[in-house]
Formats: sequence, structure tokens, C-alpha cells
Amino acid sequence: MSYITNDKLVILGAAGAIGSNMSQAALTLGLTPNVCMYDPFEKGLQGAAEEIYHCAFPGARVTWTTDIAEALQGAKYLVSSGGAPRKEGMTREDLLKGNAEIAAQLGKDIKAHAPDLKFGVIIFNPADITGLTTLVHSGLPPSVIGTLAALDSTRLQTALAQHFGVAQDEVTGCRTYGGHGEMMAVFAGGTKVAGTPLTDLIGTDKLTDEQWDAIKKHVQQGGKRIIQLRGRSSFQSPSHQSLVMVKAVMDGQGYPWPSGIYVNDQANGFEKIMMAMATTLDQNGLSGAMPKGSEADIAALRESYQHLCKLRDEVIEMGVLPPLAEWEQVNPNLK
Amino acid sequence: MSYITNDKLVILGAAGAIGSNMSQAALTLGLTPNVCMYDPFEKGLQGAAEEIYHCAFPGARVTWTTDIAEALQGAKYLVSSGGAPRKEGMTREDLLKGNAEIAAQLGKDIKAHAPDLKFGVIIFNPADITGLTTLVHSGLPPSVIGTLAALDSTRLQTALAQHFGVAQDEVTGCRTYGGHGEMMAVFAGGTKVAGTPLTDLIGTDKLTDEQWDAIKKHVQQGGKRIIQLRGRSSFQSPSHQSLVMVKAVMDGQGYPWPSGIYVNDQANGFEKIMMAMATTLDQNGLSGAMPKGSEADIAALRESYQHLCKLRDEVIEMGVLPPLAEWEQVNPNLK
Repeated sequence: MSYITNDKLVILGAAGAIGSNMSQAALTLGLTPNVCMYDPFEKGLQGAAEEIYHCAFPGARVTWTTDIAEALQGAKYLVSSGGAPRKEGMTREDLLKGNAEIAAQLGKDIKAHAPDLKFGVIIFNPADITGLTTLVHSGLPPSVIGTLAALDSTRLQTALAQHFGVAQDEVTGCRTYGGHGEMMAVFAGGTKVAGTPLTDLIGTDKLTDEQWDAIKKHVQQGGKRIIQLRGRSSFQSPSHQSLVMVKAVMDGQGYPWPSGIYVNDQANGFEKIMMAMATTLDQNGLSGAMPKGSEADIAALRESYQHLCKLRDEVIEMGVLPPLAEWEQVNPNLK
Repeated sequence: MSYITNDKLVILGAAGAIGSNMSQAALTLGLTPNVCMYDPFEKGLQGAAEEIYHCAFPGARVTWTTDIAEALQGAKYLVSSGGAPRKEGMTREDLLKGNAEIAAQLGKDIKAHAPDLKFGVIIFNPADITGLTTLVHSGLPPSVIGTLAALDSTRLQTALAQHFGVAQDEVTGCRTYGGHGEMMAVFAGGTKVAGTPLTDLIGTDKLTDEQWDAIKKHVQQGGKRIIQLRGRSSFQSPSHQSLVMVKAVMDGQGYPWPSGIYVNDQANGFEKIMMAMATTLDQNGLSGAMPKGSEADIAALRESYQHLCKLRDEVIEMGVLPPLAEWEQVNPNLK
């Protein structure tokens, strides 16, 4: 069995459903043998680690610890699912307060123990805010800390494939931008169904405006739907796609979905936020650009941005993020 | 993304913890894009399938159904975790009655719908008995139906690595044979720790007889320990190792652990049973031989066999398996 790298990958929240799945999937994907499982819940963590040992991945050197300093020491990659979970009926935003504090501490811990981090993915909700908060406190460049944003796009791809009765990967170019919450911007532009632009299909018998609106709503509620069906929040797809993001940096082969990235693009009207944009993810980490879309698409993106600003400002109000004007002092990479 | 084969792989019990993990891991391992998820529990199954769709594996053609005939139609590979789960405090044997009936029906369904099956792994407990029962009713040759037996050996490997403070794969040749229940035979012969035969270490200061007995007991209770630590029975390691078994047949590259196989070797004193033996697993499916070991090892294997015979005879008593003399009529491959 060969691995892409020997760099240390830390899974934060490894006793949980996402984190334990990720520990297994990281080895199955052949990312690195050097996986460190961290969680404050020792008993569950040990159980999850024992399961990984019993998998007997050749060459694996899996460790586990409840000490965050030990976990982060020498880490080159990390994925953190280590927030409080979302329960049925809760919006992502309900989780804001507790998880923003966890993210701030994570940022400080990264600054103290993992200054050479190459890439970290923050996936606990609301991820746009926890990712932003982690980045600010980590002192690292925006290319190094991102969030998982792909699932909205893969849910759109799934829903369109089911509507049109085509194979999933015959639906190409699906993109949602902005926040990962229910205020996400579902773009129509750029998507093709078996080669036909989605914009040529919307408003026809093949996909009426009502049907397209229903699909958008279905995508926006994608997380809730999994909770309704499985009785628990989604854990397999966040695990898998987060690791595919890490893989993109490890092997430099790129990543086909949008990621959440730090945006400070005042020319386009976006200031100091983290959200899904038209991103590139490779051995240099994350970089992003303004997405292209119709006027309606861009309007939805701006609306999503405004919603995120409100959440960000609440976290500033709480004292968990500093006022915008002080960000550059806390993290000189945030110009 | 490339896959080893396009052959249809059916995951039975795909709404459950093991089965849903397996659906993801089969694609992550690149076995086949043609994965069919089956479970009688429609809501949970749909939720698990949606999660897999949201993973967006390139080229994947995943289907789901609650119709066993549709699931098995054209299947070349299957793994079944579709029994009742073991709860804390239950022995594997407590599950005997209900799961033997499920296995008998599965065997009949395979006979009706998947006569061209290349390989199936039965993993619901007690797997030695459910595997045997499935095989008898399937009408297939013993090379085609086996059980997962590796976890006892990987648990032994883990425990020895932890005891000696060496990397897990520096412990080689770990083998448990016979039944997968607590009456398994943990072999000392053949195992090496960083090159030193385990038999040279047992009874020394490095591994006293008491410590070795404690490790054997720890391995025999390995499944219970996961339940105690995680609050649920093991699901990641059974998922992973079952798929590595399937992979061995798909790519013909072999499998490093023992598997449960049908044994009718009256010269060695074993009659019409399924248990872990010294097996080979490759493109021709399973074949097995009498394991080598010390007198104590072989005595433990015979004891484990006797225990399995009792369970098998209970199932015959229940009318779920025919009397031994009639097996060849039910399945002409069982000579």
C-alpha cells in the first residue's frame, strides 16, 4: 500500500461520526500513514482508534491523544469536525455561539503548536463562521485555512441527475456559492445536463420554474433532509469531501468543487468574510475569484454575503472575533 | 478515478452502520462503480444512499432498492451485514436463532437470483453459522461463500504491537482459527514480533504466561470491548476487512488474513462446518487447509470446532438447516 505523503494529518473530533469515518477514509484513500486522532472524549476516541487498528491498514502509523498540543505538534494537515453537532430542528446558525468559541481556541492552538500547517479544513457548523474565526486567530495565510462547501453543489448535482434521470456525473458544473447555510446562492449558470446548459432547460417543460425552485429549496435543505431520513446529521459525505480537499493539496491534482475561502475583495463589495467562491485548490492551498453568473445568481450571492456579515458581526459583538479594524494586528496575513 | 471491475457489488444491510460504511468504502477503495445498496428499511436506506451520492464519486453508478430480487439480479459480489445487531451483554450465540433464519432465506434468494455470484462474504453474527447456513441453501460451491474472520487476528496483532511497543505491522503472522465467537483458537505458532517468534517470547519477562493469557482473553473479548468503549458494536473494521476480502477476488492479489471457509475434512476430524482455517483467497475464491500449530493450538482449534458443531446442530434441530446427511441433496457442491 502506498501513501501520497508521510506528512502528519490530524483529525480533530475523531471520536465522532465524521471524525472516525475520516480516520478510516484517510487511510483508505492512501493520503498518509501518519494519522493522529484527537478528541476530548477519551473513551470514544480509544474505541474509534481500536477500530482503525483492527482495520490493519498496511504501513499505517495511527496515534490518538486527548492532548491538543500533542495532536497539533508537527501537523501539516488537519480537518476539524470538532464542534457541537446540529440536532433536528436547529438551524446551523443556532450553533453559532458555542462553536465560534471552539473555533477561536482552535485558531490559537494552531498558532501555538502547528505554525507549519500546510492546509486545514474546518467543517463544524456554521462552517463559514467557524472557518473564518479559526483563520483570524491562527495567524496563518488565507490559502491555508478553508471550509468544506462542496456538499451543496454535490446535492444540486444529485437532485438534477434524479430529476432528469441521467447518471450523476453527466450533470457538470454545479455550483453553489456564498454561505453554506440555507441562505446559500444556488447558481444556474455554468451547469450542464448531459451537455445541455441548465439555463436552456429552466422554464421549459423539462424543468419548469416551479421545479427549479423546488430543486433549489431541496438543495438548501439538504442537510435537514439527511437528518429526517437517517435520524442523524450527514457524516459520510462531509468526511469524504473534506479528505478529497486535503488530497488536492497533498497531490496537487486539483479539486472540482467550490471551497469556502477568506474573501476581502472590496472592489466587488465583499469585506472580510469566509464563503464559497470560485476557488482553486492545489499544492499552494486555496485561491479564489469572483464567480461568474447571471444577475440573479450574483444577487443571491450578495444576499448570502449579507447574511454571513450579520453572523460575523454577532461573533464580533460576543468578543470572540476582534473588530474588523483589528484583524490585521491579530493576523498580519489578513490584509 | 479507476475501478478494478464493473461487476455488480451488492451491499446487504446498507442502511446500517456497517453497510453504509461499506458502500462508501467500496467506492473509496475503487472496487467497482456498480454498487447496489439493499436494505428492507427504506427511509434509512434512502438517507444512506443520498449520503453516498453527495460524496460524488467520479463514475459511480450507485443504486438502492428494498427489493431483494432486484438487488441480487446480476450480482457478482455481495457482502451481507444484514442480520440483527448484537447488543451489549449479548453473546454472538444469543443471536443464533433469528439470524440463522435470515441466512437461510438469503441462501435461497442467492440461488434464485444470483446463481453467477463470484464471491460473497457473510458477516452477521454468529457469522460461522450464518455463513454456513447461507452456503448450504445457496447451492453454490464452498469457494464462493465465506465469512469475515480477520478481525480476531488483527485484534491480536494490535494487542501484541501495543504490548511490545512496536509498529502494528512489525507483528506478523497473527492467526486465530476456528470460530469467530469467544471460543476462537488464538494460535501462538507462526507469529513474529519484530522478527522474533512469539513462541520464543511467551513465558519470558517480555511476555509472561499470564500476560499472554490476558492478551488471548482480550482478543476473544475484542468485540465486547468496542461496545464498551463506543457504546455500539464494531462497524468500521468489519466493513473495511470484508471489502479487502472482496478486493482479493476482484484483483486476484491475495488476502493476508484467515477467512471462514466450509470445511469437510474428515481425515482431520472436521465435518461439515464453516470456520477460519489456513485459507487462500484469490480470483478463484476461497480455498483452505489445516493450519499448522503447536499441540495446544490444535487442541484449541478442536475445542472451537466442537463448540461450532453444537451451534450448527441447534440450527439443524430448529429445522433451519437440513440434517447433515441431506446437505448434498440441497447443495450438490457440498460433498
